[in-house]
Amino acid sequence: MPNADLLETFPNPYPGRAYDITMETNEFTSLCPVGGIETDAAELEKLQGGAPDFATIRISYVPAARCVELKSLKLYLWSFRNEGVFYERAVNRILDDLVSAVEPQWMQVTGDFNVRGGIKSVVTAAHGSR
Amino acid sequence: MPNADLLETFPNPYPGRAYDITMETNEFTSLCPVGGIETDAAELEKLQGGAPDFATIRISYVPAARCVELKSLKLYLWSFRNEGVFYERAVNRILDDLVSAVEPQWMQVTGDFNVRGGIKSVVTAAHGSR
Amino acid sequence: MPNADLLETFPNPYPGRAYDITMETNEFTSLCPVGGIETDAAELEKLQGGAPDFATIRISYVPAARCVELKSLKLYLWSFRNEGVFYERAVNRILDDLVSAVEPQWMQVTGDFNVRGGIKSVVTAAHGSR
Amino acid sequence: MPNADLLETFPNPYPGRAYDITMETNEFTSLCPVGGIETDAAELEKLQGGAPDFATIRISYVPAARCVELKSLKLYLWSFRNEGVFYERAVNRILDDLVSAVEPQWMQVTGDFNVRGGIKSVVTAAHGSR
Amino acid sequence: MPNADLLETFPNPYPGRAYDITMETNEFTSLCPVGGIETDAAELEKLQGGAPDFATIRISYVPAARCVELKSLKLYLWSFRNEGVFYERAVNRILDDLVSAVEPQWMQVTGDFNVRGGIKSVVTAAHGSR
Amino acid sequence: MPNADLLETFPNPYPGRAYDITMETNEFTSLCPVGGIETDAAELEKLQGGAPDFATIRISYVPAARCVELKSLKLYLWSFRNEGVFYERAVNRILDDLVSAVEPQWMQVTGDFNVRGGIKSVVTAAHGSR
Amino acid sequence: MPNADLLETFPNPYPGRAYDITMETNEFTSLCPVGGIETDAAELEKLQGGAPDFATIRISYVPAARCVELKSLKLYLWSFRNEGVFYERAVNRILDDLVSAVEPQWMQVTGDFNVRGGIKSVVTAAHGSR
Amino acid sequence: MPNADLLETFPNPYPGRAYDITMETNEFTSLCPVGGIETDAAELEKLQGGAPDFATIRISYVPAARCVELKSLKLYLWSFRNEGVFYERAVNRILDDLVSAVEPQWMQVTGDFNVRGGIKSVVTAAHGSR
Amino acid sequence: MPNADLLETFPNPYPGRAYDITMETNEFTSLCPVGGIETDAAELEKLQGGAPDFATIRISYVPAARCVELKSLKLYLWSFRNEGVFYERAVNRILDDLVSAVEPQWMQVTGDFNVRGGIKSVVTAAHGSR
Amino acid sequence: MPNADLLETFPNPYPGRAYDITMETNEFTSLCPVGGIETDAAELEKLQGGAPDFATIRISYVPAARCVELKSLKLYLWSFRNEGVFYERAVNRILDDLVSAVEPQWMQVTGDFNVRGGIKSVVTAAHGSR
Repeated sequence: MPNADLLETFPNPYPGRAYDITMETNEFTSLCPVGGIETDAAELEKLQGGAPDFATIRISYVPAARCVELKSLKLYLWSFRNEGVFYERAVNRILDDLVSAVEPQWMQVTGDFNVRGGIKSVVTAAHGSR
Repeated sequence: MPNADLLETFPNPYPGRAYDITMETNEFTSLCPVGGIETDAAELEKLQGGAPDFATIRISYVPAARCVELKSLKLYLWSFRNEGVFYERAVNRILDDLVSAVEPQWMQVTGDFNVRGGIKSVVTAAHGSR
Repeated sequence: MPNADLLETFPNPYPGRAYDITMETNEFTSLCPVGGIETDAAELEKLQGGAPDFATIRISYVPAARCVELKSLKLYLWSFRNEGVFYERAVNRILDDLVSAVEPQWMQVTGDFNVRGGIKSVVTAAHGSR
Repeated sequence: MPNADLLETFPNPYPGRAYDITMETNEFTSLCPVGGIETDAAELEKLQGGAPDFATIRISYVPAARCVELKSLKLYLWSFRNEGVFYERAVNRILDDLVSAVEPQWMQVTGDFNVRGGIKSVVTAAHGSR
Repeated sequence: MPNADLLETFPNPYPGRAYDITMETNEFTSLCPVGGIETDAAELEKLQGGAPDFATIRISYVPAARCVELKSLKLYLWSFRNEGVFYERAVNRILDDLVSAVEPQWMQVTGDFNVRGGIKSVVTAAHGSR
Repeated sequence: MPNADLLETFPNPYPGRAYDITMETNEFTSLCPVGGIETDAAELEKLQGGAPDFATIRISYVPAARCVELKSLKLYLWSFRNEGVFYERAVNRILDDLVSAVEPQWMQVTGDFNVRGGIKSVVTAAHGSR
Repeated sequence: MPNADLLETFPNPYPGRAYDITMETNEFTSLCPVGGIETDAAELEKLQGGAPDFATIRISYVPAARCVELKSLKLYLWSFRNEGVFYERAVNRILDDLVSAVEPQWMQVTGDFNVRGGIKSVVTAAHGSR
Repeated sequence: MPNADLLETFPNPYPGRAYDITMETNEFTSLCPVGGIETDAAELEKLQGGAPDFATIRISYVPAARCVELKSLKLYLWSFRNEGVFYERAVNRILDDLVSAVEPQWMQVTGDFNVRGGIKSVVTAAHGSR
Repeated sequence: MPNADLLETFPNPYPGRAYDITMETNEFTSLCPVGGIETDAAELEKLQGGAPDFATIRISYVPAARCVELKSLKLYLWSFRNEGVFYERAVNRILDDLVSAVEPQWMQVTGDFNVRGGIKSVVTAAHGSR
Repeated sequence: MPNADLLETFPNPYPGRAYDITMETNEFTSLCPVGGIETDAAELEKLQGGAPDFATIRISYVPAARCVELKSLKLYLWSFRNEGVFYERAVNRILDDLVSAVEPQWMQVTGDFNVRGGIKSVVTAAHGSR
């Protein structure tokens, strides 16, 4: 399972000012749970697991008391690499884990997933208010 | 006729949070009903039906109890392939069929149709409110 | 003169829902009335009329009872081809003619004219409210 | 089957000069023969045929005695719409049919196919020499 | 007919050096001769002539004794405005007229025509050698 | 000094409707007053005046009784060519001169100046309200 | 330490009008404090200091009594070159220093930092209100 | 290890004509062998293996007797997912495996790897001649 | 007249190796000699000289014994600012002046001039061989 | 001085095949030696050294016996950070240092430097032959 314990934080150096931090990576990959849109049974047998999914993940937040440490975010996102997870769950799960870790004033997570079956999918979820 | 029965849904895994899902495909094609902007009578006789139209379809929604299953959406959109349908009807019909299937809090469908007669057409319809 | 009689309409197939239709062409051309920014007297004598202008025309509207028929719009816009007309008049005239023809809830017309004298001009006019 | 009889030609108006003609359309669609990269058995049953493929087709040639008539080319390319055909066959077949029809000095056909299984495919074949 | 007499020239100010001149306009328009790819009989009756075509014209040459005067080139290209002419003829005709006027060491003319029937056409012809 | 007397106007042909006019040129140039960010004393001696500045100027307005005549705007902007003027003054001065000339309901002027010292500058000023 | 004394100002030439000034440079560089996301201990020994960071800095403000002198801003931003500073601190520090220097009605500073560990970071902070 | 046995082939349907096939995917990922440019010892302990690398892979070839089956290529490229491999080895290994499988007239493989340490790397290797 | 005396040079630091230097500026402006394509007699009277032309100038060369000093090139190009000069003359004159100053193994100068009368012009001249 | 000792190499894993490696970074910065194109005496006093230059560096080579280790290349390029060096010297110096380190069959280095004084400079040097 994705490992929220990998997330580390540090104290917000400017807690008195509401400012925005955005982090974006095009290197997110996970597995499709149980034969998704592009894998049939014969393929799955060869894969011994789900087919890979790829996405760009964009995280924006207004920090409160703490900020996300960047290297730990990288390790946390890598922990999805061999997990089977649906698009909607991946985005909401990342939001939940990060909200627990930094308790921001506001946070938004977007997953922009590669084309599957000719269809591109984007999922965006937010917590709190700006 | 386009076949709404092809649409399948699954329970929204995060029903307590209002979040956005966008799906986009540049592989939508249907037929122009009865000799549209670029086909004359002689062509129609050869085609034995209407001339092809092509569009990018973009669907955004805030799910309530259920989400659209992606592979079934692909099959549903394919069911327009040999149907004659005007631009305005295609977009509103997709919106109606999807609203019936997933009863979202809000949904918007855009059809961005290829140039015909030197004119590009875009139709956007929405249901509910964000 | 541009010929508003060329515009044909058809009943809005979804009159109960406020939705948007946008049509755009980069093939609009008219003549500059009486020696515009790039033509001097010697040129005009050779042209036996004004110099050509070129524009992209973008029309967006929320239909009420009727919609614009696309092929008739093409013919209507072609009817400006050999007319001398200023930018401001062309855009407002197209808006007036289309509003008369379809009586929309809201309509906006933009003319994005090619560079003349190193200056690009864009004129946008609207009718009604969204 | 794609219908080469639809292709019509006209005499090259400048036969004494070797010049280039390029025609490109992003509206080519055919069917994938027998359950291609993104369709499993359950889908095929619903489709009652192969899954759609989409491509941009680019045709360049140096005419000899005859040129391709543009409207007939459009009708010819539409005749692939409900045919199951592999990428390599589609491109080489279009080349063969056009070479038979216009006997050019040189001709090149490129099919630039949409992403399937995360992989984009481009096939290019040529006949004769420039 | 397009009027080659409009073309004026001036002596090449650097005749001893082979250098390149390129002129490009996206404001070329002519008429389609007799009901082209997008016009049927009913439209033609309303138009009282052919449907408009639009192109970008690109002219490159290595001058010998004389150069094309830019303003006269503009007037010459405008003289196609109300002429019915096929793509292949327009490009080769412009090349022939300019070659007659300036007798260049080498010249190439490209016409990049707008989409008609979903197909974009480009015609390129050259005279002499670099 | 820039010459506001060059500005000519004409009566707004549609005074009853609030519509937008935007004019943009990438051909604005003036001089930097007294040795700006990229010129030292030795350069200035050679220049016998300030170093050139270059900008794109964008003017948008909602006309009231009168509109700006396009050719006179071109001449007015050329009158900055050999004037030394700071960025903030140039933009506000153009706004003031145009407001005096056409007394618009609303007007906005933006000057988008080329990189100097590795820094790009944009100044935007407005008058009235939309 | 970054040197706020380098910032020079001049009186706002149009104090009665609220207008916008934006300055942007892609030449900001500082050092990562103590072994950031891409440097291990062996590298640091060779560097005898932190690893370089690179960013585009964008500063927008509505001036009150005074404006930032452009050349002094360049020198001020250069003073970060050999300083170790976290992204959040750099952006908020630049904002604080500039607010102290020009006491604007409103100011916003954005730092758009290069990819590190596959992740791009953007930090935006503002002072006052528009 | 990457598994060349996954590659399947089919007979070239047009063996008498030298034509080009290009396949491109932006979904290639492997692991960096033993603590690469962005991972230190502490990270590696958490990862229990190398850090992920990401690349776009482009394969072009002129087939001889056989072609690569597209779905098997997808599975073959997926087999690098949890392998530690240097950039140069990955590209040359893919080339060797594909050359063994289809014995083409000519083949070229390019790996375009994501930025690491601020540096982007591209490796291209070829076999045979066009 | 443009002032070739402003050009300064320095010894090529790597005379034993044939390498390329390219310098490009989008800040070239001169005047159109005697009423060019966009100015009539009435305008010229107001201008008291020719209308401004704008171009991007690109200079590439393989140095022999000497290189062009960058700041002196800037001053030299500024010396065209108030000179009336045709496109062909401007490009060939810059080439001649630079060839005289640095006697390169090879040099090419391109002037890419802004649209006038709807037509964009590019002139390229070279000296020597690579 | 830039430190060539930082460059480390490893044995080419495929010495029997001539293949290409390209590495590119947009994070190269050095100092301008002695008051370059944008710094006057007063600035230099404040800087206590030269003004910063910024470039994208692109290195392509065909390896012979050895390859450049990527992390060591990063450290080597960082060693220019506080060195004063002219554009031509920087590019040729990098080429010389890398040729000494890996003795490639062929190598090319390009430095694409940011705009100074409105002029962009690109320097390209090569060693050996492909």
